[in-house]
Amino acid sequence: MDRTFAALSDPTRRALLARLEGAEAVSVSELARPFAMSLPAVMKHLDVLSDAGLITRTKTGRTVSCRLKADPMEEAMGWLARYQRFWTQRLDALEAMLEARRKAPSEAE
Amino acid sequence: MDRTFAALSDPTRRALLARLEGAEAVSVSELARPFAMSLPAVMKHLDVLSDAGLITRTKTGRTVSCRLKADPMEEAMGWLARYQRFWTQRLDALEAMLEARRKAPSEAE
Repeated sequence: MDRTFAALSDPTRRALLARLEGAEAVSVSELARPFAMSLPAVMKHLDVLSDAGLITRTKTGRTVSCRLKADPMEEAMGWLARYQRFWTQRLDALEAMLEARRKAPSEAE
Repeated sequence: MDRTFAALSDPTRRALLARLEGAEAVSVSELARPFAMSLPAVMKHLDVLSDAGLITRTKTGRTVSCRLKADPMEEAMGWLARYQRFWTQRLDALEAMLEARRKAPSEAE
């Protein structure tokens, strides 16, 4: 999970994952095209994503294509989801408090 | 979002957040107790969490207490949730494929 979150902490890497979300498999050169950085720089980012298990790379002839592997992201979501319960509880508490306040003046009438 | 994911990439910091999840506010010394590291080391981790907006610190007399602030985590969840659609689509496609395979032999009978 350390590597997943570290991999996600860079905007270029998040953009690469977002690009891979829409397609089955994308070649490295096609992935690199929209970025204002060198191909080796993009490839280093792909190394980080691959080490974190977020993508797989397949070589066909001279073309390397990348695919998204969502398992580590699912694990990261699972970790964060604990906190969704926390927010929900907070919102419920807030709602209950507002409800109680709304009732209070009418009871005083 | 860079800072959120970077902050979450360390197991000590995730453990600190998990500890704060269960309580309203926890003092720094109480937070540090379970960890086999110095108080200044824990305080550095709290700095990272605070810089990422994941916690707030309040000083009351000589006690500093920390509270969880879930907003950045909600944002991170939102980003990851896009991929949940991706997994769901994949699972749907897999299910459809298996369904088609299950049907194929019976049609041949």
